[in-house]
Amino acid sequence: MALTVVGSIAFDSVRTPFGERERMLGGSAVHFALAASFFTEVRVVGPVGDDFGAEHLAALQDRGVVTEDVERVEGGETFFWRGHYEYDMNLAHTDETRLGVFGEFQPKLSPASRDAEMLFLGNIQPQLQRDVRAACRGAELVALDSMNLWIDTEREALVGAISEVDCLMLNDAETRMLTREPNLARAARAVMNMGPEIVVAKRGEYGAALFTERGLFAIPGYLLEDVRDPTGAGDSFAGGFLGYLDSRRVAGAQLEESALRQAMAYGSVLASFNVEDFGTERILRLGTGEIEDRLRQFKRITDFEVEPVRTG
Amino acid sequence: MALTVVGSIAFDSVRTPFGERERMLGGSAVHFALAASFFTEVRVVGPVGDDFGAEHLAALQDRGVVTEDVERVEGGETFFWRGHYEYDMNLAHTDETRLGVFGEFQPKLSPASRDAEMLFLGNIQPQLQRDVRAACRGAELVALDSMNLWIDTEREALVGAISEVDCLMLNDAETRMLTREPNLARAARAVMNMGPEIVVAKRGEYGAALFTERGLFAIPGYLLEDVRDPTGAGDSFAGGFLGYLDSRRVAGAQLEESALRQAMAYGSVLASFNVEDFGTERILRLGTGEIEDRLRQFKRITDFEVEPVRTG
Repeated sequence: MALTVVGSIAFDSVRTPFGERERMLGGSAVHFALAASFFTEVRVVGPVGDDFGAEHLAALQDRGVVTEDVERVEGGETFFWRGHYEYDMNLAHTDETRLGVFGEFQPKLSPASRDAEMLFLGNIQPQLQRDVRAACRGAELVALDSMNLWIDTEREALVGAISEVDCLMLNDAETRMLTREPNLARAARAVMNMGPEIVVAKRGEYGAALFTERGLFAIPGYLLEDVRDPTGAGDSFAGGFLGYLDSRRVAGAQLEESALRQAMAYGSVLASFNVEDFGTERILRLGTGEIEDRLRQFKRITDFEVEPVRTG
Repeated sequence: MALTVVGSIAFDSVRTPFGERERMLGGSAVHFALAASFFTEVRVVGPVGDDFGAEHLAALQDRGVVTEDVERVEGGETFFWRGHYEYDMNLAHTDETRLGVFGEFQPKLSPASRDAEMLFLGNIQPQLQRDVRAACRGAELVALDSMNLWIDTEREALVGAISEVDCLMLNDAETRMLTREPNLARAARAVMNMGPEIVVAKRGEYGAALFTERGLFAIPGYLLEDVRDPTGAGDSFAGGFLGYLDSRRVAGAQLEESALRQAMAYGSVLASFNVEDFGTERILRLGTGEIEDRLRQFKRITDFEVEPVRTG
């Protein structure tokens, strides 16, 4: 089993009401890969510049992430994002973006990355997502993330990319925006009509919802008292979700509904750890026992019994 | 068992992207009472004017709601609210409010209403909530709702009222505003330090969260494809929650955690029916079998298994 992710590798400078950090390791592919690394072998495809040091690669490699497709562009600068959050941490404020080598990114996949059974197309230009999708002919499950920018500026290419994948993972506002349907359940059905059999709507601190032909599933967010930096939470969710699914995958067999639901729970758990500290700090010191403990705790805080009641 | 509710009885004129209605029966006490009436005997305390007809009283009475403390003020006009919703139905836009008899409301409780084991203090002026609380000496469980207006203008009286109740039910933004604590879990703890042992944070379409000394519980919203009018959903949630708790109450015994969780689920179910049509229309044609069916369906769409995983 193996999982390839294509996306950004970045340095993030972030300020929140609880502190700030300069030039942390970040980017969608990094957050995704670290979260998924607890479940399966992950291969990262993405560009970095001269400023990306051995210690940054080592952070990924120490978690078992395969970095042979991390492309170093000589003379280039790694993608840089500076942003901040107010107390409402559902909303990121961007203060500076420097695309650097990410602006000219043309994904190059090694044979092993092309052959992975699962593929995550992180939030990059939709035509590049299509190119990577086409290159990975053997992928049994392909998931795609995107953002409002591409819905606004590259809608046609994005809808084309979506039509070629099995699973769409957007936040709920983006799902509504893409389909021009204000009701989330209807929006998810509209996405399924575009092609994907699986639609995951991420809802920030409120959790996530899963829609398939066989039904729907909703899970609240794991309630935390300490949220320090939400950057990367959505990608950690996706990494936990797909990483778990890859670990449960049986060649040729359809994914069971129960596996998808557990994947939603693992995604939520990884996202909950992500936000407890800045950037990748919490995930980098995370242990597998903590993941299992939190999953059980998550089950406890969401479980309820159904008993007949004396209604009248 | 019996449950008394004090709050507004109103006529609501509402427009949403899915239609509009003039002068529907509404108000917090009405939505609450109708939802709770599926579980227990409910007594409504609130004022109406000359314009409140026998057919409006009958709508409550037909559901078994006791209306002897509905006070008719001669020459007065029933509380009137006109509002509308855009596609984001989490936000109500008020176009007109006429307090009418509600502006001079001084609750008058019959002995039977004072003697109810449970009391819901709907969203009215905090000092009136305190007066009613003091009058109902025998109430074993008292819950209180409020709104941003009272947090802004009557904070001291409101904190006093909260200190005298067992359960606070606010929406999550109001809970944060009241406690000046942006994190919901911390805000709930701050509320518990004011007095209540039970804190329910309503989160609109995203569900609700429950905090007690013994732990926490979170439930997503029931995902619907057809939401026509959210007016009254929070009160229907409260009615389902407290109505169910009253039906489960055993004299002198503490409420079990499992009962509180089921009450959250029933509250969510009643709120989900509330929003399916305008005003009280859906609840008035609701059957008990539909409630039980939806509760089971709700369990199905939120349940997940916990299996050990091969993490590494």
